[in-house]
Amino acid sequence: MRLHHIGIAVEELEEAVARFGLLGLKETARGIVEEFRVAVSWLGEEPPKLELIQPLGEGPVQTFLERRGEGLHHLAFAVPDVEKALQELQAQGARLVDEKPRPGFGGHRVAFVHPKGFHGVLVELVEDPSTDGGTE
Amino acid sequence: MRLHHIGIAVEELEEAVARFGLLGLKETARGIVEEFRVAVSWLGEEPPKLELIQPLGEGPVQTFLERRGEGLHHLAFAVPDVEKALQELQAQGARLVDEKPRPGFGGHRVAFVHPKGFHGVLVELVEDPSTDGGTE
Repeated sequence: MRLHHIGIAVEELEEAVARFGLLGLKETARGIVEEFRVAVSWLGEEPPKLELIQPLGEGPVQTFLERRGEGLHHLAFAVPDVEKALQELQAQGARLVDEKPRPGFGGHRVAFVHPKGFHGVLVELVEDPSTDGGTE
Repeated sequence: MRLHHIGIAVEELEEAVARFGLLGLKETARGIVEEFRVAVSWLGEEPPKLELIQPLGEGPVQTFLERRGEGLHHLAFAVPDVEKALQELQAQGARLVDEKPRPGFGGHRVAFVHPKGFHGVLVELVEDPSTDGGTE
C-alpha cells in the first residue's frame, strides 16, 4: 500500500497551518468532513500530505485531544478497494474500527483499522481506484 | 522540506515488522543507532519510509513507551543543512530539543525540534545535502 496522508489532531486549524508553514509546507486544500465532525487542512503538494484535523464537536478527534492532546493521529494508506482491504486485514487478525467504508474528505471511501492491531498506530484506508494494490 | 520518514515507537521490532507487513510494507534495512539507544527497522522502498524504533535501554523512546505506549512517535523532514535549519526555526520561535546535530541512522546528522512548538508533533530534521531546501 502507498502512504496517502498523515493525520495530525489540532485544537485550531489557523494557528497550526501557520506553524507548519515554518517547515515550508503550504496549505493546498481545506474543508469539512461531516461524517467525522471535523474541519481539515491539507498541507503539501505531493502525497503523502499532512492532514491537520480540528474537531467541530464531540467525536473521535475531540476525544483524542481530550485524552492525549494535540499530535500525530493516524497514518492513511491508499488502496484500490476499501472493502476488499478490510476483509483481507480482518482475515489476518486485524481489529477493525469500521466494518464498512464511510465517506471521507473529497468523497473518498475510507475506513479505520484499530490501533491495537498495529502497535498503537491508527490506520486509515482510503479508496483510490488508481492505486495498484497490495505491494508498496 | 520533504518528508523523510515517520517514526513509530514499538516494544519489539520483530513482531511489528510482521504486522506492518500486512499493509504490504517490506523491511529494507535494520540497524542500531547508538546515539539514541535504539534498534530501528526501515519499511518501504521510497521515502517517506516508516521507521520502527525499539528502545535498547533508558532513553527518550523508552520514556515515550512508558508514558504513552506504542504508536506514532515523530515526523522527519530532509534538509540540506541541519544547523541552518535549526537556526531558522529557532529564529521563528520554535523550541529545540537539540541545539546541535547528532549522529542518526546511517551517519546522517539529525536534530529534533520540540513537539510543544509543533502542535504535539515531534519533528526531526535529517541532513541530506541532495535536498533542495526550503520549499516543499
